[in-house]
Amino acid sequence: TMNFDPKDHPHRRFNALTGEWVLVSPHRAKRPWQGQSETLDVTERPSYDPDCYLCPGNKRITGDENPNYLNTFVFSNDFAALQANTPNMYSDDELFRLEAEQGEARVICFSPDHSKTLPELELTQITKIVECWVEQTKELSGRYAHIQVFENKGSMMGCSMPHPHGQVWAQKNMPTLVAKEHEHQGTYFENNNRALLLDYAERELKDGQRLVVSNDDWIVVVPWWAAWPFETLVLPRFSVQKMVDLNSSQRLSLADVVRQIAIRYDNLFNMSFPYSMGWHGAPIDGEEHSAWQLHGHFFPPLLRSATVRKFMVGYEMLAESQRDLTPEQAADKLRSLPASHYKAALG
Amino acid sequence: TMNFDPKDHPHRRFNALTGEWVLVSPHRAKRPWQGQSETLDVTERPSYDPDCYLCPGNKRITGDENPNYLNTFVFSNDFAALQANTPNMYSDDELFRLEAEQGEARVICFSPDHSKTLPELELTQITKIVECWVEQTKELSGRYAHIQVFENKGSMMGCSMPHPHGQVWAQKNMPTLVAKEHEHQGTYFENNNRALLLDYAERELKDGQRLVVSNDDWIVVVPWWAAWPFETLVLPRFSVQKMVDLNSSQRLSLADVVRQIAIRYDNLFNMSFPYSMGWHGAPIDGEEHSAWQLHGHFFPPLLRSATVRKFMVGYEMLAESQRDLTPEQAADKLRSLPASHYKAALG
Ligand SMILES: O=P(O)(O)O[C@H]1O[C@H](CO)[C@@H](O)[C@H](O)[C@H]1O
Ligand SMILES: O=P(O)(O)O[C@H]1O[C@H](CO)[C@@H](O)[C@H](O)[C@H]1O
Repeated sequence: TMNFDPKDHPHRRFNALTGEWVLVSPHRAKRPWQGQSETLDVTERPSYDPDCYLCPGNKRITGDENPNYLNTFVFSNDFAALQANTPNMYSDDELFRLEAEQGEARVICFSPDHSKTLPELELTQITKIVECWVEQTKELSGRYAHIQVFENKGSMMGCSMPHPHGQVWAQKNMPTLVAKEHEHQGTYFENNNRALLLDYAERELKDGQRLVVSNDDWIVVVPWWAAWPFETLVLPRFSVQKMVDLNSSQRLSLADVVRQIAIRYDNLFNMSFPYSMGWHGAPIDGEEHSAWQLHGHFFPPLLRSATVRKFMVGYEMLAESQRDLTPEQAADKLRSLPASHYKAALG
Repeated sequence: TMNFDPKDHPHRRFNALTGEWVLVSPHRAKRPWQGQSETLDVTERPSYDPDCYLCPGNKRITGDENPNYLNTFVFSNDFAALQANTPNMYSDDELFRLEAEQGEARVICFSPDHSKTLPELELTQITKIVECWVEQTKELSGRYAHIQVFENKGSMMGCSMPHPHGQVWAQKNMPTLVAKEHEHQGTYFENNNRALLLDYAERELKDGQRLVVSNDDWIVVVPWWAAWPFETLVLPRFSVQKMVDLNSSQRLSLADVVRQIAIRYDNLFNMSFPYSMGWHGAPIDGEEHSAWQLHGHFFPPLLRSATVRKFMVGYEMLAESQRDLTPEQAADKLRSLPASHYKAALG
């Protein structure tokens, strides 16, 4: 009889943070690919584009003019999915439940330089972005329970404008995926009197197999339960519940670790690596939430090369997330990449 | 003060089947789109392609030769994500939980004709496909608790071969998404002593706003909680728990309703409409599952046109599914389309 080997045998892993399983089928990475390949956008962009809605001094679609900003610049999303003045409504029909939602959506320009993406920015510039996330979260905290800071990077991720930018969506209610993390962190804390992600970070650091980059305050791992091929999780090595609780040296070290992982991503296929990235923190409701740890998720769609992505379709939409290489194999690849950006080496 | 209007105001709807919410932001459909557009595959395909792995008489990658099949043809997936002989393993670590999974994956060729897609097939041919789903489910039922029948249609859905085909993945454990439906149908049954989806189908039929097509046995609706722009749900109007419990006239009427909705989809943008589609039934464990109703899901990615898709990224990956038009608006569009395939009209 064979022995079970996670590098060879299909198995399921449990996501302790959400309570969902993922199917891991390592040998499937060997199948040939004749499916869709993505078109790679390799146009060199100028530092300033007169037709860009986000460049300094330009007019937006509303007619508003952007200031000549030097670091970050924030404005209200002109087609926001959430609005502050939505009238209240609640319908409690068991089969047709509905509730009105109030919120705000903003855009954060990361840099005045149209040609750059996050991993190409200097540490000081990324630190300004982190500072901006903290400020925005602080400013919106009074009115909303959940503030979703995120970035869609690359047109493959539905990003509609190439200028480097992210978004903030703030809302009254806790959204579905955050509510799951809330529930599972809560149960773990009840059982262990420790924060789930603090224990988890400690064990990942000790084990090392899934570790990609780190510094004194933060680690980045391909989590045990990663669904996307090169998905990573950014975890604090200290107790912290919310973005706004970070002190200035922790913000700096966060910028450092974000820069480290974003550079590794670009170096994986020597291209601007697409992803959705964002931050989860405890509900902002005046309560203590010792069960919670602030953390970041990177969800990149690519699997085999710059043009072959992982499709989360069919089985994945109907049954369960499924991955084609183990998290340990993915971490190993990312970890072994150079620490400096491939473009810096070129030029 | 304004009155709440679901066609204007952002709100959340509850998915009674999975317990998840979806954010509906109707006014967002008005925003301009400068993002990625998909390349449309408009190459006319021949009825037989000597290089296709699925055409009758051709050799597959394994060297096996396909028979000269006339209707459907089933073979084992050469790079299956699940395998029957995986050794057992279970690790109950709270943070690093893992279990081995046993299963089988098969490919179902829908037709010998390389040039056709499902909506272009005759009713008798689609009936053969339904019969094949039933047979496969029956055959695998002895060994596995969950049998996922599905189709990825179109390269936009990660379908790697243009020949019309679907898949069956059978496995020992109930996958994550099915387990959610199991839980919520169970709770509803406990509370109401009726199957959730039987009550739901009745109310949708009466209301009519989200109804797209129907016949004496089945209805297709854009569900109240649809996440994808033109997502639909196929529901029986009679009590039935599993695919294998359908009698022959119910199989025929199922083929009819599948044909109706698939044709409407192609007619929406006058192109071969991409989607992932599949069937959920009660666990196959010898128990009665009166809480369950067999049903089908269609998840199509397109939003505005043949080339502009909905990206489920950023906010959606981190927080909650979000849609840009109401389910009622989507149902209205689909319902008003012609009942015969646009290509038939062309000649
Ligand atoms: O088996 P295929 O068609 O090659 O692969 C496709 O369907 C599978 C099941 O939905 C997915 O896991 C793959 O990502 C997708 O590309
Ligand atoms: O707001 P954007 O960048 O135009 O839009 C993008 O991000 C949003 C939030 O993740 C998504 O809902 C959209 O589908 C996507 O295209």
